Amino acid sequence: MSYFRKNIDEMDQYIPGTQPAAGETVIKLNTNENPYPPSPAALEALRDFDGAGMRVYPDPMASRFCKAAADILGIPAEWILPGTGSDDLIVMCVRAIAGPGRAVVIPTPTFPYYLTQAQIAGADVVEIPCDEDFNLPAEKIIAADGELTFVANPNTPTGTFTPIDQLDALAGALSGVLVIDEAYVDFAETNAVDLVKRHDNVIVLRTLSKSYSLAGLRLGFAVGKPGMLEGLVKTKSIYNISGVACAMGSATMADQTYMTECVVRVKASREALRRDLESLGFKVWPSQANFLLARPPAGDAERIYQELVAAGILVRYFRSGPLADKLRITVGTEAENSALTESLTKLV
Amino acid sequence: MSYFRKNIDEMDQYIPGTQPAAGETVIKLNTNENPYPPSPAALEALRDFDGAGMRVYPDPMASRFCKAAADILGIPAEWILPGTGSDDLIVMCVRAIAGPGRAVVIPTPTFPYYLTQAQIAGADVVEIPCDEDFNLPAEKIIAADGELTFVANPNTPTGTFTPIDQLDALAGALSGVLVIDEAYVDFAETNAVDLVKRHDNVIVLRTLSKSYSLAGLRLGFAVGKPGMLEGLVKTKSIYNISGVACAMGSATMADQTYMTECVVRVKASREALRRDLESLGFKVWPSQANFLLARPPAGDAERIYQELVAAGILVRYFRSGPLADKLRITVGTEAENSALTESLTKLV
Repeated sequence: MSYFRKNIDEMDQYIPGTQPAAGETVIKLNTNENPYPPSPAALEALRDFDGAGMRVYPDPMASRFCKAAADILGIPAEWILPGTGSDDLIVMCVRAIAGPGRAVVIPTPTFPYYLTQAQIAGADVVEIPCDEDFNLPAEKIIAADGELTFVANPNTPTGTFTPIDQLDALAGALSGVLVIDEAYVDFAETNAVDLVKRHDNVIVLRTLSKSYSLAGLRLGFAVGKPGMLEGLVKTKSIYNISGVACAMGSATMADQTYMTECVVRVKASREALRRDLESLGFKVWPSQANFLLARPPAGDAERIYQELVAAGILVRYFRSGPLADKLRITVGTEAENSALTESLTKLV
Repeated sequence: MSYFRKNIDEMDQYIPGTQPAAGETVIKLNTNENPYPPSPAALEALRDFDGAGMRVYPDPMASRFCKAAADILGIPAEWILPGTGSDDLIVMCVRAIAGPGRAVVIPTPTFPYYLTQAQIAGADVVEIPCDEDFNLPAEKIIAADGELTFVANPNTPTGTFTPIDQLDALAGALSGVLVIDEAYVDFAETNAVDLVKRHDNVIVLRTLSKSYSLAGLRLGFAVGKPGMLEGLVKTKSIYNISGVACAMGSATMADQTYMTECVVRVKASREALRRDLESLGFKVWPSQANFLLARPPAGDAERIYQELVAAGILVRYFRSGPLADKLRITVGTEAENSALTESLTKLV
């Protein structure tokens, strides 16, 4: 007899991309981190942080960080809910909204963690496959009309960007909650924050793990109207944001210039890498994120993935369905991208 | 029509003890923090921390910290699961084990967060009141035989310590999981870690927020056999422990001498404060934690709580049931305890 709920026994654990062991030297293009270091302002906040003050609990709402994030987005601080990364916020959305007899709608392929969380909740999972160009199947999503719908925009692992007016129409047509996960949005041309003002049922998720180069800090936030956040906050861990995260997060949000400079570099590298991959015969899907989904000329993605690992280069390979013949490659520094291209030249 | 699950709409948000605003000077005896700063080793780990490395994700299992914690407890590192404080681990226990049609047994009064989480899960909540001396109602807990039973030991807000042989018998008699929350155990005479070796159904929770003076860091851990942790980890946020938390946590676990010194001081102050309160006519319950549950001579706990707030001293007042005429007072420094006693002299 198991001690666990049936859903737990039946589901697989979510396995994130490989993290190299300490001291291991690899070119890490597998979990969409920013190749550039965090903002000097964030590092200064770390250096100046009063460690002795850690004997007391942090502000449970990380108000200083919420204010800093709200100021950048031009919305009230009460519209921000902090989380230890987007994953924590996805958990809050699912716990507050999804459950047995309540549908979670997930266009696929996408971030597999939505499915993991829906499974834990025992929700009715409705997976809706995108077409082969990975366009959002908006009509089918509307027809499913779940209590909770997840759309990553830009999407992972495809890089696809759904125009905001399509998301606007989607939000208006759904009777349940639409979560727009904007983890990668700073690498795109625009974003959906205005939809929160226009729709009561929209939650936008952001993270400091990608464009802000702070994956190791564990900090993200949800944007929603106060009536929406009121439900989510009931499921928040009491003191989820440490004082260090609050201080570094506040400093980094206030330094938009640095983030924008890094993003400009990443976007330029993305286009260069796309050209290089295409000249090697890869099919590359249009991406507005900091990674590219690419199909090797012979479709032998798994072999190339393995050979790259052997050469000390990590990219992401998803075994399943329409992704089985493709690789997701994070845009690294110029040097990292060149090393990758050089290795690939020998492999394809 | 609400966007949320029925349970969410019907439940109250958990409200933690008041956190003074930045710059506000109060004597803070309301959330059981350690009055002494974190270990110098932890502060050194913070100073030495490589902020630039935060651009990448942390180790999802915080292996270095788990190893450090396991070494102290004399168990394998695979028996440790890290969380962002005990609250994160309580959430994992509930999500993996509790749900509709599955009972969560909670002896009361205790940490209200167990109830909060059981309510979110939609579990069948079985609250079992302790007697007026707050002894654990073990027979009734066994009779209820829930899928998940929480026992805080020492208990909060009472300070009561249940002898380990009673918990041993309880674990043996239950067919479900027994979570022994040892947040305050370093202030007690012994602990229940050995029960994890003897019983497949026991989980012990620890935190670095109390004895280790790192409430602001957000770090705790569960101790359980690998078969038990396998279920819990499916519900863990992917990268719940930041690199800073892992580094400071590892350093602090390795410095047991400092923790023990702080604990010795707190325990001496606890006894002095107990004598002072008793000489003012308070009834004080025996405590093996870093706080005292105390009933003012006239039972007018709410008035005294308010007057203390006005005097710049925060203690904890719980409005409900058997706690309505009592205060929970964190053991502070000698100076803080004296200031409290002096104020109370004028108030009782």
